[in-house]
Amino acid sequence: MAELGVISLEEAKAALDKFWKPKPRDVYVSFSHAIGRVSSTEIKSKIDVPPFDRATYDGFAVKASDTFGATESSPIKLKLVGRVLAGTWPRMHLRPGSSVEITTGAPLPRGADAVVMSEYAVVEDGSVNIYRSVSPWENVTSRGSDIKKGQIVIGRLKQLNLLDVAVLAAIGVKKIMVKDRPKVAVISTGSELVEPGAKLRKGKIYDVNATSLSESVRACGGEPVFLGTISDRFSAIKAAVSNGIKIADVVLISGGSSVGTGDLTPRAIATLGRPGVIVHGIAMKPGKPTFIAVVKNKPIFGLPGYPVSALMVFDQLVADYLHELSGIPRSRQSVVQAKLATKLLSARGRQEFVPVKLVEKDGQKLAEPILKGSGAITSLSTADGYIEVPLEREIVEEGESVEVKLFRGCSLV
Amino acid sequence: MAELGVISLEEAKAALDKFWKPKPRDVYVSFSHAIGRVSSTEIKSKIDVPPFDRATYDGFAVKASDTFGATESSPIKLKLVGRVLAGTWPRMHLRPGSSVEITTGAPLPRGADAVVMSEYAVVEDGSVNIYRSVSPWENVTSRGSDIKKGQIVIGRLKQLNLLDVAVLAAIGVKKIMVKDRPKVAVISTGSELVEPGAKLRKGKIYDVNATSLSESVRACGGEPVFLGTISDRFSAIKAAVSNGIKIADVVLISGGSSVGTGDLTPRAIATLGRPGVIVHGIAMKPGKPTFIAVVKNKPIFGLPGYPVSALMVFDQLVADYLHELSGIPRSRQSVVQAKLATKLLSARGRQEFVPVKLVEKDGQKLAEPILKGSGAITSLSTADGYIEVPLEREIVEEGESVEVKLFRGCSLV
Repeated sequence: MAELGVISLEEAKAALDKFWKPKPRDVYVSFSHAIGRVSSTEIKSKIDVPPFDRATYDGFAVKASDTFGATESSPIKLKLVGRVLAGTWPRMHLRPGSSVEITTGAPLPRGADAVVMSEYAVVEDGSVNIYRSVSPWENVTSRGSDIKKGQIVIGRLKQLNLLDVAVLAAIGVKKIMVKDRPKVAVISTGSELVEPGAKLRKGKIYDVNATSLSESVRACGGEPVFLGTISDRFSAIKAAVSNGIKIADVVLISGGSSVGTGDLTPRAIATLGRPGVIVHGIAMKPGKPTFIAVVKNKPIFGLPGYPVSALMVFDQLVADYLHELSGIPRSRQSVVQAKLATKLLSARGRQEFVPVKLVEKDGQKLAEPILKGSGAITSLSTADGYIEVPLEREIVEEGESVEVKLFRGCSLV
Repeated sequence: MAELGVISLEEAKAALDKFWKPKPRDVYVSFSHAIGRVSSTEIKSKIDVPPFDRATYDGFAVKASDTFGATESSPIKLKLVGRVLAGTWPRMHLRPGSSVEITTGAPLPRGADAVVMSEYAVVEDGSVNIYRSVSPWENVTSRGSDIKKGQIVIGRLKQLNLLDVAVLAAIGVKKIMVKDRPKVAVISTGSELVEPGAKLRKGKIYDVNATSLSESVRACGGEPVFLGTISDRFSAIKAAVSNGIKIADVVLISGGSSVGTGDLTPRAIATLGRPGVIVHGIAMKPGKPTFIAVVKNKPIFGLPGYPVSALMVFDQLVADYLHELSGIPRSRQSVVQAKLATKLLSARGRQEFVPVKLVEKDGQKLAEPILKGSGAITSLSTADGYIEVPLEREIVEEGESVEVKLFRGCSLV
């Protein structure tokens, strides 16, 4: 009948705060791997884009004033003195009364200040007849008109999308500094667990947490490192956590944290260094047996073994730290008002999270609690969201208005 | 003054439809790589989850009727005959008047039908005193209560999320059949182009399309294979496209498609096989010089060289085919009503797409057209969405109500 020193979620976070704070790291990545990452610094262009005045269309580079007065019925004849192709650099200097054939994207030769589109010009015996006048800089894409040298193209702490990396390509930046992905060791404990795909012997079940926690870590911008499904043995747990501290920034270990026969994990961690276990027991349901330890300046989160409990505690306790480390903003949680479909009993003194399904009935939105229990992964996979019952409430009545938080958060997308 | 045989976007799609239809393929992937993929078949569980009746909490397995009448003040004494740990299989058969210590998740021994939680039991001299009665199946998680053998856990054509793969783990499925990612060859042509990161010589610019089109392909569930930034040479283009047809399902080639000096790509493709180029010129802006070819039953989309044009044409013409191949649903495009901030002139006979920025002014939503031109990638990266001007419109007046399609589509996220 051992009792945990249960504290609130907020108190648990405050306790961790004294021993560890998330410190994001920077890393350089190629712009082709930068989508979804978060910029560490603002990024300025080192070049004008385009880097020179270029023809917007295929046509003829001219001095605009040479074309003034040209019309369909009275074209102006200019001497054709050459050709500039895109990708080359023109050496000529355009003299008054002359013109140069030019392709889309090719640099404008010196002396030219406009382009007459091919549609309005006809070549004839070393000359070109211009059938429409152009104004200065018409059909020319000016140097720096897209992006100016020195211009900030991406702000600090921006999560990069497709167009951002296209802009990086345009300014020729190959590598940029982004927030590093925190490495998160994921360990499953439980002698009853086997890895999916393996043979299921009598008394065993498949390990769900390895998968659901690893993917939750990824959704928060972290890089999960799965260290195995291990049995409830003191030495195995100690070795796995010790390894996790070495290779990762954060350690997640699920199972074996309830105070009973299986309370091995906190005891094993207690032998690894100071301060060790700093929180054991949080006043939330599911999630009461959760513990937090700090060893060698790395936090270790001990999550419940039940898959739903592990995911809920991850979402409430762990996710924010990973978002802070990775810099990736948490997707906003949408909230929907609904009426509770059936009376709900809740444990006093615990903040309770209850998965619900949303249904429409007689034009009303109803939230149906899913009471399959924390062991049932389908209680989450069939839910639309969850409601939160505060510490002091024991009963929520049928028909009472409740706030349903839709699953859009990091772990439950 | 060559003219393209310009047709509408719908006509272009209908023309392609005669020669090629997207045929999705199936592929097996590990469940750990299945997030975001689309299931090819429905998935049934081959096992009950849990596969046996198990203890929901640490405590004592009993025959419920043996505990009837037990209270805090008058406990009932049962003989303690053993212990079952999670992960083991109990061989004993519980006789009336006896009890077995049991840990969370351990299988219930035969003869037992309930669990008394540790909090309500005290062990004493080979016996256990029970301080609270339990009903049959109390504190027991029944075989199949989460998922029943034969139950469909994932429907056909479902895009898998974190909870779906957690369910796959729970039923022990290691590999599942999903829609394959279409391979898409991406080729950039233009003698003026250099790859980002390389030295920028006079007359050259950085290639944006390689990046923006590859990432757009990825966003539609495809796998881009970049075949290089190649110069405007007939033989180079022919070799690259020929290679693309061999290794990929779809070929995207940008640049070199306008009818002018640089009209090499359609000519090069025309030599590769029948039917060859089936569409050349689409009545949209940007995007007029777009072409479509079919060679060896593979479609080749010739996109404009200007980055904004290439992305817009990708979004309007190519994206839907890739979504159909990958099975990944297209993210819904949100629409916002706004008033046009300035008069807009449009080319008659072309469906025009104009990037706009949304601003609030005097409590009104205004759409400001960004008129930097198709060459400027910042005209997209600074836009919130775009408006569409139909074929027959030439002027949209200042203050006119317009529908702004927000960038949420596949290529422009």
